[in-house]
Amino acid sequence: MGSFKGHALPGSILLVSGVWWAVKYSLWYAIRRNKSAGAARLTTRATQHRLEIIEGAMMLFFAAVGMLGEQFTADGPKLHLYDSSTQHWEKLMNWQHTTIYLFFGLAGATSLTVHSTSAAPLALDRLLLGLAFFNEGFIFLYHLHGREMLDVHVHMLLLYAVFGGALVCLLEVFHRGNVLLELLRAALSLLQGSWFWQIAFVLYPPSEVKWDQSDHNNAMFITMCYSWHLAFALAVVAVAHTTVLCIVRSKLRRIPPMEMGLLKPQEREGDSEDEGL
Amino acid sequence: MGSFKGHALPGSILLVSGVWWAVKYSLWYAIRRNKSAGAARLTTRATQHRLEIIEGAMMLFFAAVGMLGEQFTADGPKLHLYDSSTQHWEKLMNWQHTTIYLFFGLAGATSLTVHSTSAAPLALDRLLLGLAFFNEGFIFLYHLHGREMLDVHVHMLLLYAVFGGALVCLLEVFHRGNVLLELLRAALSLLQGSWFWQIAFVLYPPSEVKWDQSDHNNAMFITMCYSWHLAFALAVVAVAHTTVLCIVRSKLRRIPPMEMGLLKPQEREGDSEDEGL
Amino acid sequence: MGSFKGHALPGSILLVSGVWWAVKYSLWYAIRRNKSAGAARLTTRATQHRLEIIEGAMMLFFAAVGMLGEQFTADGPKLHLYDSSTQHWEKLMNWQHTTIYLFFGLAGATSLTVHSTSAAPLALDRLLLGLAFFNEGFIFLYHLHGREMLDVHVHMLLLYAVFGGALVCLLEVFHRGNVLLELLRAALSLLQGSWFWQIAFVLYPPSEVKWDQSDHNNAMFITMCYSWHLAFALAVVAVAHTTVLCIVRSKLRRIPPMEMGLLKPQEREGDSEDEGL
Amino acid sequence: MGSFKGHALPGSILLVSGVWWAVKYSLWYAIRRNKSAGAARLTTRATQHRLEIIEGAMMLFFAAVGMLGEQFTADGPKLHLYDSSTQHWEKLMNWQHTTIYLFFGLAGATSLTVHSTSAAPLALDRLLLGLAFFNEGFIFLYHLHGREMLDVHVHMLLLYAVFGGALVCLLEVFHRGNVLLELLRAALSLLQGSWFWQIAFVLYPPSEVKWDQSDHNNAMFITMCYSWHLAFALAVVAVAHTTVLCIVRSKLRRIPPMEMGLLKPQEREGDSEDEGL
Repeated sequence: MGSFKGHALPGSILLVSGVWWAVKYSLWYAIRRNKSAGAARLTTRATQHRLEIIEGAMMLFFAAVGMLGEQFTADGPKLHLYDSSTQHWEKLMNWQHTTIYLFFGLAGATSLTVHSTSAAPLALDRLLLGLAFFNEGFIFLYHLHGREMLDVHVHMLLLYAVFGGALVCLLEVFHRGNVLLELLRAALSLLQGSWFWQIAFVLYPPSEVKWDQSDHNNAMFITMCYSWHLAFALAVVAVAHTTVLCIVRSKLRRIPPMEMGLLKPQEREGDSEDEGL
Repeated sequence: MGSFKGHALPGSILLVSGVWWAVKYSLWYAIRRNKSAGAARLTTRATQHRLEIIEGAMMLFFAAVGMLGEQFTADGPKLHLYDSSTQHWEKLMNWQHTTIYLFFGLAGATSLTVHSTSAAPLALDRLLLGLAFFNEGFIFLYHLHGREMLDVHVHMLLLYAVFGGALVCLLEVFHRGNVLLELLRAALSLLQGSWFWQIAFVLYPPSEVKWDQSDHNNAMFITMCYSWHLAFALAVVAVAHTTVLCIVRSKLRRIPPMEMGLLKPQEREGDSEDEGL
Repeated sequence: MGSFKGHALPGSILLVSGVWWAVKYSLWYAIRRNKSAGAARLTTRATQHRLEIIEGAMMLFFAAVGMLGEQFTADGPKLHLYDSSTQHWEKLMNWQHTTIYLFFGLAGATSLTVHSTSAAPLALDRLLLGLAFFNEGFIFLYHLHGREMLDVHVHMLLLYAVFGGALVCLLEVFHRGNVLLELLRAALSLLQGSWFWQIAFVLYPPSEVKWDQSDHNNAMFITMCYSWHLAFALAVVAVAHTTVLCIVRSKLRRIPPMEMGLLKPQEREGDSEDEGL
Repeated sequence: MGSFKGHALPGSILLVSGVWWAVKYSLWYAIRRNKSAGAARLTTRATQHRLEIIEGAMMLFFAAVGMLGEQFTADGPKLHLYDSSTQHWEKLMNWQHTTIYLFFGLAGATSLTVHSTSAAPLALDRLLLGLAFFNEGFIFLYHLHGREMLDVHVHMLLLYAVFGGALVCLLEVFHRGNVLLELLRAALSLLQGSWFWQIAFVLYPPSEVKWDQSDHNNAMFITMCYSWHLAFALAVVAVAHTTVLCIVRSKLRRIPPMEMGLLKPQEREGDSEDEGL
């Protein structure tokens, strides 16, 4: 969309996804870890299963909204791709954003199918999510021709989070249920979301003062700022994880003794197997 | 060959391969999954084994046809490599395409050998197929010097599918029989095939209207178009997979109950082991 | 800081870390290997556990010192980021170095938390350490605009050790307790440390003779010199490893017979499992 | 050395290594596969063990010869590194080659130590070999400044084999005894060796006709030629592998029946475990 709102909207969705993932996977982890203490009664497999289906449906819904929004807002192409009279492509930017939403829609539909039928292998949802992130990065990569230095730079930085997310999803295909990868995905999603907001403020500042798009000092500050966003994303995930663990424990009325810090082998194995799913 | 037919022919072969792989691996997967329901009677190990040999022979045959076609068509080099009178290399493009076919021939011959004798480890067929894809990408990478912008761009995009295919084959060496990797390979093969057709239409359009090879908007459209080809390839694989599963199930007269969606651990392990081979 | 001391200080910390890691992991390895000979009485799990906590606390402490040093030395920005009167960023270099230290601080705090409570999965300490190395490399990568050729070159070479360290940490998330990865991390840390000293001598030579920053021969020598630093780092790790093994053996009064060189399978498995932790 | 001999000599050593590795690993593989048929009586563990020690010693010896050759031939630097009168580095090329040999010497010494004592984990030999290949590629990468186009191109192509070898060694650290990786390493070593000979013929042709170093057609031919070298290397490995397997079988007077082609699971597992070592 090339506007403040066009960056803030996907940013907000990604921020919510990130927090949601951090909470969900921390919860599953806490339940797996405290299984012997009766954590299973907090949630059933059927509940977890239903949550996955709802998540897939939400992703499909928001992707459809995004696609329709890109096409039918005031300055959208309204499904016209080529104007043969002037021999020009119509509003390629909107079409590219539509394509990005399309792949997230596919990922949502796949997740829905995988978890509601037995037709496909379980890891397919992560593979499609990984492809959706990869496609997003791919489109952005060839999307920046002829823009100003700072504009290109902030979008390039975004690619670290996007391709990082794709890589984590691919690793999850082989290491499903590894809580570290799941939380890393949540953190990268938060990073991407907050960075979309940052881009909105840099390129379309609501105040009068504009950023000098060709000042090298601005680029250096923005690079460092990206690291701060990552630190912030890690902090949010850490807070969410700790809160969930505390709540689960208080519900179980079981304060683990100090020597629990030294994990027993079978408990460590639990980190990399999604037994709860 | 540098002509419409020279791109359409390999494209067609790749499209057929892609569909064939999607069907074959979906079938093996369905049989593994429904083993307890007597799916084994639908096919025997000997049949599967024979299919692999036929596949290897077909690959070898088409590679040989491709090599001969590149060499002995009207404008081929007819096995002359160097013209010492003019001190020039003869038709290097045809020689490069011959080299690409050569490696697919090697992969076919290897697959034939691996499955008909016990001389070599099983995973060798994937390693050679991966090398064949890698070699294709390698040749294309150093093949584009001095061409026009759009020509270079459409061939660069092809490399994503080619190197992606090589990477998937390499992963299959270590995770043989993982149905996700097999279907991903099928999808990337379809993508490559349909993209060859797209290149044919872009560079040698059958209609009167030529593409402006240096218009940046065309490059941006083509990039997005590549994503659509990927979405199309994924859809074809999904349709093939679903159709095969439905047929196998109707043959077994066994409609799995709804709670099957929640896979039991031992069934999930079945995803990453090629027990049927 | 852009001074001799500003490079020598982190270099020294990294050198000490490298030696410390080489000794620590060699010791754990020797104890695992000689378990049957009663090596367990040399150290208890509680001791190992306490050491990890101290290590995390030290990392946090030095990161805090580094951050304060960058901010509050004579030419530091003293927490001012933006001078709105001149519309300029304040001392971005110091802020960037502060950011690098911040992530090592986070890694230290994480390690402290992981080993003193049971709230988080064990591999989280390596993931955060990997992120800290990655962030360091990321900042350096966008940090070199407009400097002289040799200055850029010595910092680029540094990135090999930095990103190598990040990669090793990521591998350790999945292969925890693999002594080869641990020693490789020690070696890369030593390489980074000694290279910081090298940079200090090249860019801020204490003698009168300055290096010609644009002479290509200097760049070629420096490249080779980097290889020598790596060889030196490997030698230091080898010496530390051998010394530790000899001391442990002499303490156990047990000279292993010659045929021990041919490891039995169960002893080899011990290489990739951190049973002692 | 920058001469015909300076490229032909390492090329020959690499060719011999490649053939040797193809034979050795095929032999180990054949013995593992035919264990039940009494293949163990063909060789003992002690023999295998002794071979590894000899191999390490040979590598150390040739590396020492290479280092001395680079330093003390007629135009060598004779251990002088810096001429302080003219303020110039002495013969940096020879020093760089010496550094490459140094790392292969370290790898040889490590292999010797690992297999003759029990001080270090077994996989260390592959890690050091991988580092030696990596260091070779690293030096070559920063070694080509200011040369002619074809000269740069043939050396860049070499890097595929060099970094490929490094990657395979790193994979072997985690998948020790996987015969495919071992044979791939042999093939890449052959490729590197034969390519050194090709470089010698291209840059220092013994005949009168020189190659035009800036003709793009030459670069295109050379690229394709590299693929042919790879095909040749694969063929050599295949021939060596088949010959060794036939000899072992004829010695065992045991022709495996046709249905052996369909490997049983436990035989397949044998591919990725180095039980014979």
